[in-house]
Amino acid sequence: MKNILVLGAGLSASSLIKYFCDNSDTEGWKIRVVDRDMNLVNSKIHGPNAEAMSFNALDPEERRPQVEWADLVISMLPARFHVEVARDCIDLKTNLITPSYVSKEMEALSDEAETAGIIILNEIGVDPGIDHMSAMKIIDEIHEMGGKMHIFESFTGGLVAPESDNNPWNYKFTWNPRNVVLAGQGGAAKFIQEGQYKYIPYNKLFRRTEIIEIEGYGQFEGYANRDSLSYRDVYGLEEIPTIYRGTFRRKGFSRAWDCFVQLGATDDSYILEGSEHMTYRDYINSFLPYNPNDSVELKLRHYLKIDQDDNLWDKLLWLDIFSRDKKVGLKDATPAQILQKILEEKWAMKPNDKDMIVMHHKFVYILDGEYHEINSDMVSIGVDDVHTAMSRTVGLPAAICGKMILNGTIQLKGVQRPIKENIYAPVLKELEEYGIKFKDTKLSEPVLYNEGVI
Amino acid sequence: MKNILVLGAGLSASSLIKYFCDNSDTEGWKIRVVDRDMNLVNSKIHGPNAEAMSFNALDPEERRPQVEWADLVISMLPARFHVEVARDCIDLKTNLITPSYVSKEMEALSDEAETAGIIILNEIGVDPGIDHMSAMKIIDEIHEMGGKMHIFESFTGGLVAPESDNNPWNYKFTWNPRNVVLAGQGGAAKFIQEGQYKYIPYNKLFRRTEIIEIEGYGQFEGYANRDSLSYRDVYGLEEIPTIYRGTFRRKGFSRAWDCFVQLGATDDSYILEGSEHMTYRDYINSFLPYNPNDSVELKLRHYLKIDQDDNLWDKLLWLDIFSRDKKVGLKDATPAQILQKILEEKWAMKPNDKDMIVMHHKFVYILDGEYHEINSDMVSIGVDDVHTAMSRTVGLPAAICGKMILNGTIQLKGVQRPIKENIYAPVLKELEEYGIKFKDTKLSEPVLYNEGVI
Repeated sequence: MKNILVLGAGLSASSLIKYFCDNSDTEGWKIRVVDRDMNLVNSKIHGPNAEAMSFNALDPEERRPQVEWADLVISMLPARFHVEVARDCIDLKTNLITPSYVSKEMEALSDEAETAGIIILNEIGVDPGIDHMSAMKIIDEIHEMGGKMHIFESFTGGLVAPESDNNPWNYKFTWNPRNVVLAGQGGAAKFIQEGQYKYIPYNKLFRRTEIIEIEGYGQFEGYANRDSLSYRDVYGLEEIPTIYRGTFRRKGFSRAWDCFVQLGATDDSYILEGSEHMTYRDYINSFLPYNPNDSVELKLRHYLKIDQDDNLWDKLLWLDIFSRDKKVGLKDATPAQILQKILEEKWAMKPNDKDMIVMHHKFVYILDGEYHEINSDMVSIGVDDVHTAMSRTVGLPAAICGKMILNGTIQLKGVQRPIKENIYAPVLKELEEYGIKFKDTKLSEPVLYNEGVI
Repeated sequence: MKNILVLGAGLSASSLIKYFCDNSDTEGWKIRVVDRDMNLVNSKIHGPNAEAMSFNALDPEERRPQVEWADLVISMLPARFHVEVARDCIDLKTNLITPSYVSKEMEALSDEAETAGIIILNEIGVDPGIDHMSAMKIIDEIHEMGGKMHIFESFTGGLVAPESDNNPWNYKFTWNPRNVVLAGQGGAAKFIQEGQYKYIPYNKLFRRTEIIEIEGYGQFEGYANRDSLSYRDVYGLEEIPTIYRGTFRRKGFSRAWDCFVQLGATDDSYILEGSEHMTYRDYINSFLPYNPNDSVELKLRHYLKIDQDDNLWDKLLWLDIFSRDKKVGLKDATPAQILQKILEEKWAMKPNDKDMIVMHHKFVYILDGEYHEINSDMVSIGVDDVHTAMSRTVGLPAAICGKMILNGTIQLKGVQRPIKENIYAPVLKELEEYGIKFKDTKLSEPVLYNEGVI
């Protein structure tokens, strides 16, 4: 028997836990799932091999005996706690999986992990995770053919499925609402195009989108992620002239969202005086010039230059932001907290609503003196409220890797990402059984930025 | 004899040092002026009572014996060092003057300073300083008449004098260029208008200006300072419905400056790849979308929606930002550092150029059931390259207060600002001898935001 310890039983852990329970007999696993909320754990485990536990996973005294018991720990805790868990794992020689980005502190533990004979596998969710694996599969194929990568562009979006997409924003919260409100803040977006470094400040981020069509799913728009440049090292593409990573929304979202950015309504750095007793209308008015004669509506249209017949206005109206009745009701709240509240009333997923993960890669490479292009797309729709597309695409890759670590298929040690063929090939293959599947298309005519000869 | 220690002999200390030297015989002062640069000190002192010293004023070992020698210290060091100097002054029972804002740490020393029997007088330059004094003079007069303050607006600008104003921006660096480039960053501007709190994010700050005419000097525009609200407490105007403080530029400056804000060229938080070898054109292009066919000029016009016949374009062209020849030449530079370099080449004061300080206050008050308005304006033009308007308006108020502390006119102890009549009245009076003089105008018809009855 092998022992698996799962720390955290939140939304993103549902499909991971189910995978472990489903396969526990065949694989010979004992599973312990820990959360402060015992009911939550019990609602997610099944079968005789899984045990619910309720203790504070952030307390080393309580956590360490369990880490010692386990052959593998999956940390679904907030990312800032992973390093602490990793230190326990090194100490107690237990393998560790996290879906989060490798922090500098985590990277620094690699040698110790290797000496301890364990793997700490990170970035094995959807983004990061499935994006790495599906990109590296094609990049490796291109390199094996003798091709040279020229353009890599990659977009991922967590959205509402078409069947549940019934609001003017074509958007609902399928993930942490706070992260959606603050998306893009904290520094300029950085990427490189045809050898030229490009920088987009937050105040222009949502006006520099690209439109991408995904066959069968219509048009999406992508805005730039903060750091595309660091992927050059990770993917071994140091010399590539164009690398761009972005986030998908439905077409038209970003232009309307930019209204909030321009107003300053996404600012999380200060508190609005008297926020608790403001109406939504007061809230919007606090960002607009004072005028005793003009309506908030007209001031907003004029300030942001929104034409009378621009349908982004419908998006704003639909949020009730001009309501004289609805109260903020949050004491000492920041603009971003209030905006989140307004949006949560409108963008909440309803029972039976389904979510959707969309991923799109574009690879242009040079082979035998000619440009070639491959596009690779994946769309995954949630199964139900628990096994959402987000939960499945985050949890299943981690769970499959868990199996491969326990059965010895993955022999790597140290701090790792899923960028090597012996990890990504079997994981991508097994994900297909769960309907998480990429469709690759070789274009007859590559779409280039620059029509120059090679 | 009384002993005066001046820490720092930079530009803003010139007129202060001159005042002390000029009056040293009459008043019986010995003056020591300290700077790392002995030549600089020697160029600014004169007469038998002044002594140049060169030591590291930031080193307590070197500083403390001098603080002990002195009856009064004037710290013209960067603001972050004032608290450390203040602790020495409390210890050694020496009075202290600084032109800088009272920090929380400084405020916390007030009781100790009082116990030690010393005054630590802060915010006694131009802004803060002359603004406090000239505003409080009229506010106190209004309150004494039985009036109730309804609107207080106040603007200050450090600009180039009309006789030296010969570039399309109507602006030159008369003060720390870095502060000009970063002006307005670090949080939303906050103020209150007719009882409504208003917040302006950085990306809109330079588009929310007000135009003000100063008789004899033409039009200026003001953008909001970060925090107008805290002045309510300082000025005893807790209940005032409108308080707004701003910074003056010449009309048209802010609209053009906003181009750099929108591009992200004022960002100081990250480094541009390969900055050293960029041309100015490359620098601007790094903020614009990639396109192999369009010029940087057209991309910029399109991106920022600058019409063909808009004369802000002349301002941009004149800076040579599209130059293919001029190199940045700064290694690992931030966008803001590069912009500063570009501007310093163009906005530098030439020999014999004169600077100008402009201040404007608007006071609306209610008396006997009617609205009344007083405007109060001050314009000060520099004397020469050394005794600039900036140096005189920063240094003379501090020097005059120094005299008043040493001769016992100012008896206050603890951490203070120049907001009490027994400070501001004699200082404003003496400043008039130096041509730093306010012109007050009572309007026959007050200009209100809202024509409502009282």
